[in-house]
Amino acid sequence: MFEIRTDLAVEEKESVRGGGEISGVSLREWRKASSSIKMTEVRILDETGAKAMGKPRGVYLTMEAKQMAREDEGYHREVSRELAAQLRRMLKGLRKRRAVPAGDPLHVLVVGLGNPSVTPDALGPGVLGNLHVNRNLRDASGLPACGDETVILSGIVPGVMAQTGMETAEIIGGILYETAPDLVIAIDALAARSIRRLGTTIQLTDTGIQPGSGVGNHRHSLTEESLGVPVLAIGVPTVVGAAAIVHDTISALIGTLWSSMETKGMGDYLDGLPPDEQYQLISELLEPEFGQLYVTPPDIDQTVKRLGYTISEGIHLAFYENPQDEEECGI
Amino acid sequence: MFEIRTDLAVEEKESVRGGGEISGVSLREWRKASSSIKMTEVRILDETGAKAMGKPRGVYLTMEAKQMAREDEGYHREVSRELAAQLRRMLKGLRKRRAVPAGDPLHVLVVGLGNPSVTPDALGPGVLGNLHVNRNLRDASGLPACGDETVILSGIVPGVMAQTGMETAEIIGGILYETAPDLVIAIDALAARSIRRLGTTIQLTDTGIQPGSGVGNHRHSLTEESLGVPVLAIGVPTVVGAAAIVHDTISALIGTLWSSMETKGMGDYLDGLPPDEQYQLISELLEPEFGQLYVTPPDIDQTVKRLGYTISEGIHLAFYENPQDEEECGI
Amino acid sequence: MFEIRTDLAVEEKESVRGGGEISGVSLREWRKASSSIKMTEVRILDETGAKAMGKPRGVYLTMEAKQMAREDEGYHREVSRELAAQLRRMLKGLRKRRAVPAGDPLHVLVVGLGNPSVTPDALGPGVLGNLHVNRNLRDASGLPACGDETVILSGIVPGVMAQTGMETAEIIGGILYETAPDLVIAIDALAARSIRRLGTTIQLTDTGIQPGSGVGNHRHSLTEESLGVPVLAIGVPTVVGAAAIVHDTISALIGTLWSSMETKGMGDYLDGLPPDEQYQLISELLEPEFGQLYVTPPDIDQTVKRLGYTISEGIHLAFYENPQDEEECGI
Amino acid sequence: MFEIRTDLAVEEKESVRGGGEISGVSLREWRKASSSIKMTEVRILDETGAKAMGKPRGVYLTMEAKQMAREDEGYHREVSRELAAQLRRMLKGLRKRRAVPAGDPLHVLVVGLGNPSVTPDALGPGVLGNLHVNRNLRDASGLPACGDETVILSGIVPGVMAQTGMETAEIIGGILYETAPDLVIAIDALAARSIRRLGTTIQLTDTGIQPGSGVGNHRHSLTEESLGVPVLAIGVPTVVGAAAIVHDTISALIGTLWSSMETKGMGDYLDGLPPDEQYQLISELLEPEFGQLYVTPPDIDQTVKRLGYTISEGIHLAFYENPQDEEECGI
Repeated sequence: MFEIRTDLAVEEKESVRGGGEISGVSLREWRKASSSIKMTEVRILDETGAKAMGKPRGVYLTMEAKQMAREDEGYHREVSRELAAQLRRMLKGLRKRRAVPAGDPLHVLVVGLGNPSVTPDALGPGVLGNLHVNRNLRDASGLPACGDETVILSGIVPGVMAQTGMETAEIIGGILYETAPDLVIAIDALAARSIRRLGTTIQLTDTGIQPGSGVGNHRHSLTEESLGVPVLAIGVPTVVGAAAIVHDTISALIGTLWSSMETKGMGDYLDGLPPDEQYQLISELLEPEFGQLYVTPPDIDQTVKRLGYTISEGIHLAFYENPQDEEECGI
Repeated sequence: MFEIRTDLAVEEKESVRGGGEISGVSLREWRKASSSIKMTEVRILDETGAKAMGKPRGVYLTMEAKQMAREDEGYHREVSRELAAQLRRMLKGLRKRRAVPAGDPLHVLVVGLGNPSVTPDALGPGVLGNLHVNRNLRDASGLPACGDETVILSGIVPGVMAQTGMETAEIIGGILYETAPDLVIAIDALAARSIRRLGTTIQLTDTGIQPGSGVGNHRHSLTEESLGVPVLAIGVPTVVGAAAIVHDTISALIGTLWSSMETKGMGDYLDGLPPDEQYQLISELLEPEFGQLYVTPPDIDQTVKRLGYTISEGIHLAFYENPQDEEECGI
Repeated sequence: MFEIRTDLAVEEKESVRGGGEISGVSLREWRKASSSIKMTEVRILDETGAKAMGKPRGVYLTMEAKQMAREDEGYHREVSRELAAQLRRMLKGLRKRRAVPAGDPLHVLVVGLGNPSVTPDALGPGVLGNLHVNRNLRDASGLPACGDETVILSGIVPGVMAQTGMETAEIIGGILYETAPDLVIAIDALAARSIRRLGTTIQLTDTGIQPGSGVGNHRHSLTEESLGVPVLAIGVPTVVGAAAIVHDTISALIGTLWSSMETKGMGDYLDGLPPDEQYQLISELLEPEFGQLYVTPPDIDQTVKRLGYTISEGIHLAFYENPQDEEECGI
Repeated sequence: MFEIRTDLAVEEKESVRGGGEISGVSLREWRKASSSIKMTEVRILDETGAKAMGKPRGVYLTMEAKQMAREDEGYHREVSRELAAQLRRMLKGLRKRRAVPAGDPLHVLVVGLGNPSVTPDALGPGVLGNLHVNRNLRDASGLPACGDETVILSGIVPGVMAQTGMETAEIIGGILYETAPDLVIAIDALAARSIRRLGTTIQLTDTGIQPGSGVGNHRHSLTEESLGVPVLAIGVPTVVGAAAIVHDTISALIGTLWSSMETKGMGDYLDGLPPDEQYQLISELLEPEFGQLYVTPPDIDQTVKRLGYTISEGIHLAFYENPQDEEECGI
């Protein structure tokens, strides 16, 4: 069966009840002064909201900027800085929640999900390719190298099940067992509903990775519940499901028919179908292979390369940057 | 503007006039004894045929086998052998046409078109990555190394215009000027109409590469007319244009509406629209970005790797294999 | 400090006591009828042998063939077949030792060690790139898919510490904890003493991976003792330590001086130095960075690609090939 | 036969006549205020100098900085800026020499030499992977896009002869014939004499690429004389020839013997040999394969990635940066 899905909470929010209020879901939008980045925070507050949204409770923060889709000499440093600010804020919360004293280092494992051989699925491996880890540079006692917010960073590209024969959750679970980090940051390429989102949006969520999400469609979850460690997920939409494209076009067709006097009856008829019958009609039109197909633009290699750099820089700025002792830390 | 196109002559033949006879186009289908490969030859014989098909005069040979889409220990050696047989046949014709004596070597330049960084566009570079060239191993007088059918092989991956700033035709034209081969074989990933074609079909044609064809949409042609050397093109469909997917679904919707008593009127109406009005209607539904989008399956990396090997082996078998002196040639 | 080391037991055997008999070490050489592969088995039988050889007790099997260094259409299928025979033999022993009934599947985890971005260190990742795993294709109860010798295959490319911040032993240890395989096969690029060994030798050993071995110099061991699971290591030498090259040249210089009447005195003098003083002299000549440098030929990419395929095919032949039901298994 | 060579004029200058004055060769060293980059300019003024140095007449500018060998958040922007300044200066000279009016664009073709599959030879392809070309963005008349110093940029990765069967000079010659640029910038990995140079030095020269230079050992030259267009070469040493390492160690051994009273006689003897007899002695010690071997550090992937970025940024800053209209140009 095919599925019209989006990994972006902000898109789910728009499509449920025509974008109106949903019980158990809060929405907040803002734009920093002198910034081109639009911030949107969707909070799913309770089970009612989770059911309506088809996503677990938690915070979904979206950073949008049209210019992310274009080349930029600084690799969108403004976006990296904003991402860093959000990561620091979350880390501060984590430190408080886990009662880790300010001087003690937090250990963060960054996981680059996806298939490095399939361009639109290669965001995670791309970020890890740029990432500067430091866990290997610590001394045996894990002493802080420099700075206030001391972070021990490690990273892994687990590969995909077709290559490893293992669930990503098995590989990560094993590494957690051996290395016991305080936080997992999972980077993944996402599926969006709208092609306008491709390469222009970054989503951060504290809910981790859900089954069926991402370009490679994870079978198992990577969440605090399943792994026993908080999981922060950072994603960028790089594909749209082919079924979503078809669905949107048929919706547009209905609208067109409806708006013309001559064909208003047909539009009325189709529009009048209950959603599940509309869905049923479209399912019948689609070939079974369809659920597996995705739509992606031809310059996706540039997007993945560019945003992979933007995200790795965001992580570096969050954890390493410290104006006073930059020289000393040498990173 | 978007375009519903296929690079496969066999699909064009099916879609024009409902697959019926077309003046100036001949069709021949066969299957070798004890072979799972279905062969189809479309010949466009004159300008009438060329206009109806939207493709230039020439021979389009298609080799189809469902199992090409699956893993195979021998990398589909049967397909490589058939490809080799066709290449040899064409080379024999070329030798005759150019009046090259049997003992003299023919120089063949293999061109791997496409973007190595975009998985479904990376077929050409993949074939070249496996190709054993020998032009550098010849002595200064280009003396035949071994065998009856002596071939001097060279190869190039020209890259794509976004990376080089140059038309592929400029790069290849320059190399032809310097090295003067007798034949160009251009390998390219193709766009099909039907998702069932993805990774299951190989097309050979003596018409070269046309503007607007391939995944990367070449702007200029690579043909005997433009380059002054015969150009044989080998392609495998790896994508379907997103517009084609939508078009097919809407056609299916029309069929569905038409087949139901209740909605027959709507189907009649839509079906009754002249083709160009149908086309117009769909264009209006599609966003302008659409023309740039393509649909591809998530395991396209495996297909590109596997068929890249099948094709390079086909070229090796065509030009190097010679049971009597395999030992001596050492390739 | 620099180190003159070899990962090949067969080279160690040659250099210790001028290749004469060593207590606690057995040597067996043979050549299969009609085969160009020279087989050598070094067995380190006890602690005396282990101390003399600087390697742990166990079996070190070497397969040598000069033609491995050259291109071959079948990717040296003869070598793959011999490797498969050895793997099957070892697997049979493991089955007996672990008392696994003949019908029950054995689970094998293949580990591709090394850095995919550094060509001579990329053998392990190269093998894994060709490997067909099947653990993901099993049903939940892990039922045998086909054949007598049923093997469940999984695989991982753990990366190197500079990229992950983690010891390879930590990553593999975690995966073993989660997936509990019966056997680990670790693939690694090796350092040899002689440049003639580069790309012409495959070593199999049941002793696993030792600290300080491989091109990337593993810090921790991957052995049955450390991991709790038998570890079979397959390696191909792709580099020679720069210090070894210098040492050999100085030895040759001593020989040259010694053989000439005029300079016999100098040769005598140098030759007369006790080995540790010779070693001391050379150390002083070498810069400290030297221990990190390696020597490799310019066509190492071809060697790594070719032997990566030979080894992955050896594994496939060992575990999947079964003439009776090849069709059924479809691999 | 082996060869002790360096592609760096500054090293050649040091080794000829013990670094003393050479007729026909001028040397200038400086350090910009508040800069860590040491600049050295070797000018070979006439045929006497060219013969002594074994390099053609021309300017060889070297930029050295130890910290280039280390990670740096800004990818050594200071080095990129200095490289840009030098490129602009050379371009200004070219504009004058070719009498191109200030408003007219200059067309620059950047060539990324080397083998992308062999890490220490992959500098050229790495730079091209980061390069933003703009020739494809020009209108048909090639109108300047923005800024004072208008440059049309194109780029190519020609591959190596073992992959293409063609000389690089043939491929570049053909592209020059078709696209007629005003300048070629060739990027290449170099061989140095001293391991301390690896990854810490950038050489710019207006003499182009000589036969036998680079890691891949070009057979033909890429020079103004051979191509008919000025050729600027930018290189970074990534390897040391194995023969050079051995030579240096033997030289050090001679020094050590000479400095000890006990072995002074031997040192005297060896030192007293004429250079060609020393060379002869070493040649006899080396195996024939030796000439093909190179020495490289294990973290060469990081060096190549980092300096590839530093050089591509240098080119961008030279040709695109223009404070007044950065916004307008949008690059």
